[in-house]
Amino acid sequence: MLDFKTAGESHGPQLTAILSGFPAGVLIDEETVNLDLARRQKGYGRGGRMKIEKDKVRLLSGVRFSRTLGSPITLVIKNRDYENWLDVMSPLGKEPEQSKKVTRPRPGHADLAGALKFAHKDARNILERSSARETAARVAVGAVCKCLLTEFSIELFSHVVCLGGVEADVSGLAFSEIKQKAEASDVRCADAKAAQKMKEKIDDAKKKGDTLGGIAEIVATGVPVGLGNVMNWEEKLDGLLAQAVMSIPSVKGVEAGMGFQTGRVFGSEVHDAISYSDDVKKLEKGRGPSGGFYHETNNAGGIEGGMTNGEAVIVRAAFKPIPTMMKPKLSVDLETKEPFEASKERSDVCAVPAAGVVAEAMTAFVLTNAFIAKFGGDSLEEIRRNYNSYVQYLEDY
Amino acid sequence: MLDFKTAGESHGPQLTAILSGFPAGVLIDEETVNLDLARRQKGYGRGGRMKIEKDKVRLLSGVRFSRTLGSPITLVIKNRDYENWLDVMSPLGKEPEQSKKVTRPRPGHADLAGALKFAHKDARNILERSSARETAARVAVGAVCKCLLTEFSIELFSHVVCLGGVEADVSGLAFSEIKQKAEASDVRCADAKAAQKMKEKIDDAKKKGDTLGGIAEIVATGVPVGLGNVMNWEEKLDGLLAQAVMSIPSVKGVEAGMGFQTGRVFGSEVHDAISYSDDVKKLEKGRGPSGGFYHETNNAGGIEGGMTNGEAVIVRAAFKPIPTMMKPKLSVDLETKEPFEASKERSDVCAVPAAGVVAEAMTAFVLTNAFIAKFGGDSLEEIRRNYNSYVQYLEDY
Amino acid sequence: MLDFKTAGESHGPQLTAILSGFPAGVLIDEETVNLDLARRQKGYGRGGRMKIEKDKVRLLSGVRFSRTLGSPITLVIKNRDYENWLDVMSPLGKEPEQSKKVTRPRPGHADLAGALKFAHKDARNILERSSARETAARVAVGAVCKCLLTEFSIELFSHVVCLGGVEADVSGLAFSEIKQKAEASDVRCADAKAAQKMKEKIDDAKKKGDTLGGIAEIVATGVPVGLGNVMNWEEKLDGLLAQAVMSIPSVKGVEAGMGFQTGRVFGSEVHDAISYSDDVKKLEKGRGPSGGFYHETNNAGGIEGGMTNGEAVIVRAAFKPIPTMMKPKLSVDLETKEPFEASKERSDVCAVPAAGVVAEAMTAFVLTNAFIAKFGGDSLEEIRRNYNSYVQYLEDY
Amino acid sequence: MLDFKTAGESHGPQLTAILSGFPAGVLIDEETVNLDLARRQKGYGRGGRMKIEKDKVRLLSGVRFSRTLGSPITLVIKNRDYENWLDVMSPLGKEPEQSKKVTRPRPGHADLAGALKFAHKDARNILERSSARETAARVAVGAVCKCLLTEFSIELFSHVVCLGGVEADVSGLAFSEIKQKAEASDVRCADAKAAQKMKEKIDDAKKKGDTLGGIAEIVATGVPVGLGNVMNWEEKLDGLLAQAVMSIPSVKGVEAGMGFQTGRVFGSEVHDAISYSDDVKKLEKGRGPSGGFYHETNNAGGIEGGMTNGEAVIVRAAFKPIPTMMKPKLSVDLETKEPFEASKERSDVCAVPAAGVVAEAMTAFVLTNAFIAKFGGDSLEEIRRNYNSYVQYLEDY
Repeated sequence: MLDFKTAGESHGPQLTAILSGFPAGVLIDEETVNLDLARRQKGYGRGGRMKIEKDKVRLLSGVRFSRTLGSPITLVIKNRDYENWLDVMSPLGKEPEQSKKVTRPRPGHADLAGALKFAHKDARNILERSSARETAARVAVGAVCKCLLTEFSIELFSHVVCLGGVEADVSGLAFSEIKQKAEASDVRCADAKAAQKMKEKIDDAKKKGDTLGGIAEIVATGVPVGLGNVMNWEEKLDGLLAQAVMSIPSVKGVEAGMGFQTGRVFGSEVHDAISYSDDVKKLEKGRGPSGGFYHETNNAGGIEGGMTNGEAVIVRAAFKPIPTMMKPKLSVDLETKEPFEASKERSDVCAVPAAGVVAEAMTAFVLTNAFIAKFGGDSLEEIRRNYNSYVQYLEDY
Repeated sequence: MLDFKTAGESHGPQLTAILSGFPAGVLIDEETVNLDLARRQKGYGRGGRMKIEKDKVRLLSGVRFSRTLGSPITLVIKNRDYENWLDVMSPLGKEPEQSKKVTRPRPGHADLAGALKFAHKDARNILERSSARETAARVAVGAVCKCLLTEFSIELFSHVVCLGGVEADVSGLAFSEIKQKAEASDVRCADAKAAQKMKEKIDDAKKKGDTLGGIAEIVATGVPVGLGNVMNWEEKLDGLLAQAVMSIPSVKGVEAGMGFQTGRVFGSEVHDAISYSDDVKKLEKGRGPSGGFYHETNNAGGIEGGMTNGEAVIVRAAFKPIPTMMKPKLSVDLETKEPFEASKERSDVCAVPAAGVVAEAMTAFVLTNAFIAKFGGDSLEEIRRNYNSYVQYLEDY
Repeated sequence: MLDFKTAGESHGPQLTAILSGFPAGVLIDEETVNLDLARRQKGYGRGGRMKIEKDKVRLLSGVRFSRTLGSPITLVIKNRDYENWLDVMSPLGKEPEQSKKVTRPRPGHADLAGALKFAHKDARNILERSSARETAARVAVGAVCKCLLTEFSIELFSHVVCLGGVEADVSGLAFSEIKQKAEASDVRCADAKAAQKMKEKIDDAKKKGDTLGGIAEIVATGVPVGLGNVMNWEEKLDGLLAQAVMSIPSVKGVEAGMGFQTGRVFGSEVHDAISYSDDVKKLEKGRGPSGGFYHETNNAGGIEGGMTNGEAVIVRAAFKPIPTMMKPKLSVDLETKEPFEASKERSDVCAVPAAGVVAEAMTAFVLTNAFIAKFGGDSLEEIRRNYNSYVQYLEDY
Repeated sequence: MLDFKTAGESHGPQLTAILSGFPAGVLIDEETVNLDLARRQKGYGRGGRMKIEKDKVRLLSGVRFSRTLGSPITLVIKNRDYENWLDVMSPLGKEPEQSKKVTRPRPGHADLAGALKFAHKDARNILERSSARETAARVAVGAVCKCLLTEFSIELFSHVVCLGGVEADVSGLAFSEIKQKAEASDVRCADAKAAQKMKEKIDDAKKKGDTLGGIAEIVATGVPVGLGNVMNWEEKLDGLLAQAVMSIPSVKGVEAGMGFQTGRVFGSEVHDAISYSDDVKKLEKGRGPSGGFYHETNNAGGIEGGMTNGEAVIVRAAFKPIPTMMKPKLSVDLETKEPFEASKERSDVCAVPAAGVVAEAMTAFVLTNAFIAKFGGDSLEEIRRNYNSYVQYLEDY
């Protein structure tokens, strides 16, 4: 079973991830991972830290001469800012008497709940870990997973479909176009007009000392029919995707395919008619192997009964605005219980473009896990044999 | 760790659930469980089967003289219709030669993906398990979990906030009012005017041979601060809730608190200011123990950083319309690959009211699991000691 | 992932097991399972209850016309004695005021530790579940697993190698002979002379009011090289086997291959030299597919580095004597703290022959789980394709 | 839930472990961990590498000013030898054309099974991970766990009870004496006479170019009654201990308390009579809190029904001799299938003293996990409250 853990505080020495259960023989190098790390650090509306931290991964186990071994893969991303935080974040020694405790929990953050839960009086002990910095490690893990998926023509991309209420319109665009346009956009939005309005909205929010959230869509193409499992509630693919994506800091909602809109229309407008064809062209459009069966529409987002149905897998995540705002919000001191105005001089205004990259990584992880569960296999070579024989079976079905 | 498995086909002999890790000493009886089973079977817009199956649970292990033992709890719900299906669903013997295979996968169902995945040529082998009938077992499990939660004044309810596009307005209503009104409504909606429109919408859909979905909201009150875990992605409470709810058949979206709306407004409109008070009145309104800290608003839905923050936990689930419709939808025969019109003579039009009860059960399970992880304890007596000392700690914080 | 839960008290209505993750298309019927249940109930030295309970399984889900569906399999074994225990073990109602509590914990049982852990004052609440009766459900699960394994020529058997200090000598016997002789022996021992002495030892113990333990060996033949995983500590096959077997009531030790003896000899006497041959005959002797590589000896018990190495998998379990003895042992009343003599009028003297069958079942479960992890596959058909291509790969290696 | 992963190849840059689920507020520093790392590297009969690698841990997350935060703890141990292996073990770049593949699998190692399983033609890709080097990471994890246990007066130690057939006699010695004598012995044996013979045996083996295994005993004192769980097979403490210990490279057998010997004697010689006393003196001898109940003997090794019973927990592990021997053993080349003599010029003769330290670490991990499951708690402070109230409950029982 594929599994990963991340570790590391935001201003500690480094982030670490261990990814276990990954098959042997997959080509992987640091540059591939670094590309995704860079994608996570871009985006209109980011503040200063993104410039400080140019994240680079180091692969410290599980890989030899750029091929995975089958052993756990260690991924390390240094926190370049750590040298300035040695006094505050030292793992060792005694706490300095003059230590500046964070006793003022910020609204919208994990500070208060975490301090109470873990019996900390210094909210730094929470915020260092609850920080979105942790997601860099997830992106690195996702990049490794993509290296396996791409061997089977499964490709993932993400794009921003809403930012601060500005909705994008990508109707009529092919997946390849959406991907390319989103990658070229500094708000990762494939609709150029909407992208312009999003940036204006960000500028407006910045002026007001406010922040913005949004919605990103993640698409996986080429996914074969039958990943996930309808038989057991804890193995349903949509459930696993929902958990993985909802666990990303700031995510407040997840949907697949038509999502919440399905609660607002007739069944005849929702359910995807089933067709069959030998014509390869009809079977393109992001579809994966499914033996010639396909759907005319894809309102299901590629998942029915907790299993992939051969269509592109489509997941959307809603991200709340960044809670750290220049505009003050009331809070209460942990020690004195006195109210204060929580504000911050400088901060990001919007992290949605980057957040979409994180959701893409979590989706890649869940799909890879389901892929391995379906095809077994300890090596790329073995998985390929099993995958190919399944594709043949589908064609013969 | 709390865990449960369900088993059973829709027209097989019975549904079975085993719930393990449940503490000893909790009062539980079959009637409590049956009440929730009955709630799941009500609702305007249901078809004939709900009248056939008056579900009753039997507790066959883990309980003695109405108190849990700490051992796994077996819950059985007989399928009363089974006697009419003996020829079709017999676990034993050989398949009759004249057996009527289901070779026509229904759009919007698991039939096609499941048949291809599991190498079945008879889609009945999938649809018997993918059927929403399975959720009766989940409701039974959830009812047991509520018996523990209620000992700590944690109460759950659900209500329909949207049905087929008709939105309910419950602003200004206290949780107790919403609960009471929803329970009294045959669409489980607390807004009487909206409820009337929802029923009209259902009547309309029925006339058209169409179906409807909707959105249900689940609320848990009295939840103490600090359930869930910010430190590890796979233990974040919102992630676990999202998985549990998304795993329910027909759910296409899950959100917490303000959910997708947070992607459309400014941060200043989203984040909940933190206050402090010794005044018990202020600490009511569905809040659980959190040492006097509270939030003026609850846009977070009671969860920040993957942990409860002392406010009511609020989750919403979007259910797609029932896929089995009188109105025909195109599909393809598994054997012949010929197209056909999938239609059904008689069916439910809308299952959203019932589905909300299922989501309530899954929420109860996840909260109980997090509660046990936080307070440890093998018996109600021990959990109570640990809980009380935590509440005292919060007051002294 | 294959997984199972058992539930049920010793004198409650029934035992229940749910086995999930089992592939579709495997032939299985109740009689196959019943054969193993009967094997568990035989054996020289058993007392009265074994005659009362002629265990029969009912398959209540996951199977249709004797083929698995891929859905969870429910296995139920009724406790035939339950009707005599209705007053004592009723799940419902209030405890009778005159209820006879068990306040006298028996030495060697879970009674004391369990009562203290779960805050019970009636040790019956523990002993009903800690009873070896639970292992009937495990045997049923194991029998289902064997139905898959046997499709790939993996066969399991067990035999008693020591009983109350009497050691069997099976040197020189082929596996098939050991199996056949053990099955024919009422102490499940393949060495007829030793078997006779074991029975005399049992008679002797019975006379003395004492009990006996022993050691059973479980052998799995035909296992392909490469099950389990060397890369992660929690996936090592020997670790998983050790857990599964040690979790059986009364087991106090587990070893693989030469086991504890490896700590007493030179390395040159332990490690198995590696050979290679195309000669099928050399590759028999319980070996599974491993591409022509084999070992001259099998001191490793078929497992190296937490993986199968192509040789027969050999595990031994030590069972302590039955703790319920006619001969009194001192204990202390839970309520009064007064000492008393724990004794029982009638009981089994030795359960080792039956216990070996349980260990066989747990071994079958662990191997099946590892088999599915290696070969993936949702159906027998798919697993067979993947398995065959692996065997071909091994031959081409 | 406590959980850990290790990663790292034997000659790669470093070993990494991530320990998650560890509570906040526990005092821990690198020196405490280093002490156990040093204990793992000592022992009569070790070869050269132990001198090269003076292992030092670095704590890179989860700890701040020597107190745990509740977040995952990253432990790193550098491989000091790595600089000499850059050409062979580089994670990056292409494999050099002149690369020296290991095509000769060593008997008694994971080489053959691993190469076949993972489709490697270079056995180095297996042996780098299957190496006992990995256990250094486990020892570091165990050292962290001990920091929590020791706060509750749970202490662990290990000693060698058999080496190459030389058995130690520690009868009559108190646990404190055994611990102290074993720590002072360079074969970690508390019986000075036996220790002398063990060293002679090692010298003898060295002369013969052979190797030796042995048996280590791990003892945990002060463990409260009620850890583990009798109700579910996968939560039984003896099962979990067996898995954790058996997963250590070279372990071929595990037993608790009297272990395999229970299969050779009468029940009256095995089962531990239960007593009760208020006299603190009687309740010492390695016992933990159990409300005045205790056992006169401890043949159960502190575990009954998969739960601790208040007595010292005693586990023994059998380690096979080191497979790398100067004395040649026959094997077969992976490529040519030609036989060769596997031999090594220089190597360790015996690693049992060190291996006992590893088993101690795994035992510490399993006990800590069970401790947290029982007492819940996110912080040392909270666990202490819950633990104390349990101890009080036991006294009032």
